[in-house]
Amino acid sequence: AFSQDIDHILETQCALAVDLGGTNLRVAIVSMRGKIMRKYCKPNPKTYESRIQLILSMSQDAIQDAVRLNCRILGVGVSTGGRVNPQEGVILHSTKLIQEWSSVDLRTPLSDALHLPVWLDNDGNCAALAEKKFGHGQGVENFVTIITGTGIGGGIVHHHELVHGSTFCAGELGHIMVSLDGPECMCGSRGCVEAYASGMALQREAKRLHDEDLLIMEGMELKKVEAVSAVHLISAAQQGNAKAQAVLKTASTALGVAVVNILHMTNPSLVILSGVLASYYQSPVQDVISQRALASSQGIKVVTSDLEEPALLGAASMVLDYTTRRSC
Amino acid sequence: AFSQDIDHILETQCALAVDLGGTNLRVAIVSMRGKIMRKYCKPNPKTYESRIQLILSMSQDAIQDAVRLNCRILGVGVSTGGRVNPQEGVILHSTKLIQEWSSVDLRTPLSDALHLPVWLDNDGNCAALAEKKFGHGQGVENFVTIITGTGIGGGIVHHHELVHGSTFCAGELGHIMVSLDGPECMCGSRGCVEAYASGMALQREAKRLHDEDLLIMEGMELKKVEAVSAVHLISAAQQGNAKAQAVLKTASTALGVAVVNILHMTNPSLVILSGVLASYYQSPVQDVISQRALASSQGIKVVTSDLEEPALLGAASMVLDYTTRRSC
Ligand SMILES: [Ca+2]
Ligand SMILES: [Ca+2]
Ligand SMILES: [Zn+2]
Ligand SMILES: [Zn+2]
Repeated sequence: AFSQDIDHILETQCALAVDLGGTNLRVAIVSMRGKIMRKYCKPNPKTYESRIQLILSMSQDAIQDAVRLNCRILGVGVSTGGRVNPQEGVILHSTKLIQEWSSVDLRTPLSDALHLPVWLDNDGNCAALAEKKFGHGQGVENFVTIITGTGIGGGIVHHHELVHGSTFCAGELGHIMVSLDGPECMCGSRGCVEAYASGMALQREAKRLHDEDLLIMEGMELKKVEAVSAVHLISAAQQGNAKAQAVLKTASTALGVAVVNILHMTNPSLVILSGVLASYYQSPVQDVISQRALASSQGIKVVTSDLEEPALLGAASMVLDYTTRRSC
Repeated sequence: AFSQDIDHILETQCALAVDLGGTNLRVAIVSMRGKIMRKYCKPNPKTYESRIQLILSMSQDAIQDAVRLNCRILGVGVSTGGRVNPQEGVILHSTKLIQEWSSVDLRTPLSDALHLPVWLDNDGNCAALAEKKFGHGQGVENFVTIITGTGIGGGIVHHHELVHGSTFCAGELGHIMVSLDGPECMCGSRGCVEAYASGMALQREAKRLHDEDLLIMEGMELKKVEAVSAVHLISAAQQGNAKAQAVLKTASTALGVAVVNILHMTNPSLVILSGVLASYYQSPVQDVISQRALASSQGIKVVTSDLEEPALLGAASMVLDYTTRRSC
């Protein structure tokens, strides 16, 4: 009977999770054991006003569904691109992928309208929180997550706590530079690992090869130019396209060098690769560690995340951890 | 009378500090307020046996002098190149500059022979401890020190504590890579900031230019090839030698990029540059931050250390902090 009570609590105590990405705005009801009970997705609007409106209307719809699902919503957790001050609930500087999203107090309008407590952090930090609560980071004192999607984000957990730094700029692992010059990055710098190894960077290189008629191999299908992506690059490389192989080799080396830099700076015991390209990068990153890391950091483990939705789960974990923590 | 008592305690309570570098072995008597009461220097022997012997004999001489100086030695603090496990008192892996110095338990022979408690850490971490106790790092929650000498070392202080990492490899800031290829480094990798911006790297470039007869400007004096060093490179650059200027520009950019990587990873509020080249590098490093760091980390301060002897003072601070800490 006791374990049934616990089961009941774990399934009925829920968080509302919001994920603000460059393309989509997603909302989910997430249970305390990390089960996504329901998920909603719409294109992320291009202006501040319409974005706030859509977050509110999607959240209100979800809260109504939660009643029918017998879920008790404890609060709202938001994951967003950009630099976030989680204490104030403010987005300081966004990435260029989300417009009109700098110096934005998100907590006040959300908590005023929804009458719920609101937490927020950036997507990379949320990915780390998701690993800490539901993934490979459970119980690990020092670990780092690198999430490779359109861009590259990350989060650093030190002594079981997320590192935010003095100006909330810690864990900006996509902007570790691995070249004195190198390709231009969205952030305004050059040579960032994001400009080499993100989905966006691979798509840029795939388009470049395709424009020069160097990408497509016999048997590969491709309907129109806009559809060229990292997937075609990887598939061309697997079919022996030397140009595609060289691009991916450089991308993997860049990510590996960034990981070694992390090892030499904060020296975690575990590196978790997350996002669509994670399983592709795992082995080359391990190779770069073997070749270029100091002997003392050779023993570090590199694993691929098992989590389907790190940003949503991490956003939810902020709510679940705070609202269920006993006062002390 | 009370303040006189305090003065007396601060001057008579002392640490024995030992600094093991690539060239010299140094020992000092350091008072609680960071005054170096006496200093001893000999060439660092090339073998384990003779090095241990020399540490012991120099320490015993210093302990005798301490009696005459009315100093009470509370313990021994050791700063050494390489990766150190400070809990066990063991040097795990040394730099190539100090031979026969890996997997060395230094605490046991020293404490057995000197009958004093012994602490040790690497030179970069000791430099950070010195700033924390006696320098710009006093009272600063999150800061980083980068010390540029023959090599490049560093230390990271987070929440007022040194970051050692899971395998004592944190703060190995000299081996942050800023290039996918780049010049070979002593550590076996390539493109490390140490291979671009250390005294050793500048000397290598100075020799290269000198071999091609491209270094010496009118009025510059240089006796023999062995004496070519970073000093000549800087002086040639100041006299308008474009080749020397280009080398120093690359070195400064490399150090700046490494600093920006630190800002994007752990985001300290303060970066302290230490060592002979610190004042030279301060302004170009600040320029690279302006050009290449994310907006959120633009406010970070870069300062030059005021400390004459960071390694010795940091070694001493381990003794002074531990032996005077009240139990709690
Ligand atoms: Ca982050
Ligand atoms: Ca160090
Ligand atoms: Zn960037
Ligand atoms: Zn190196």
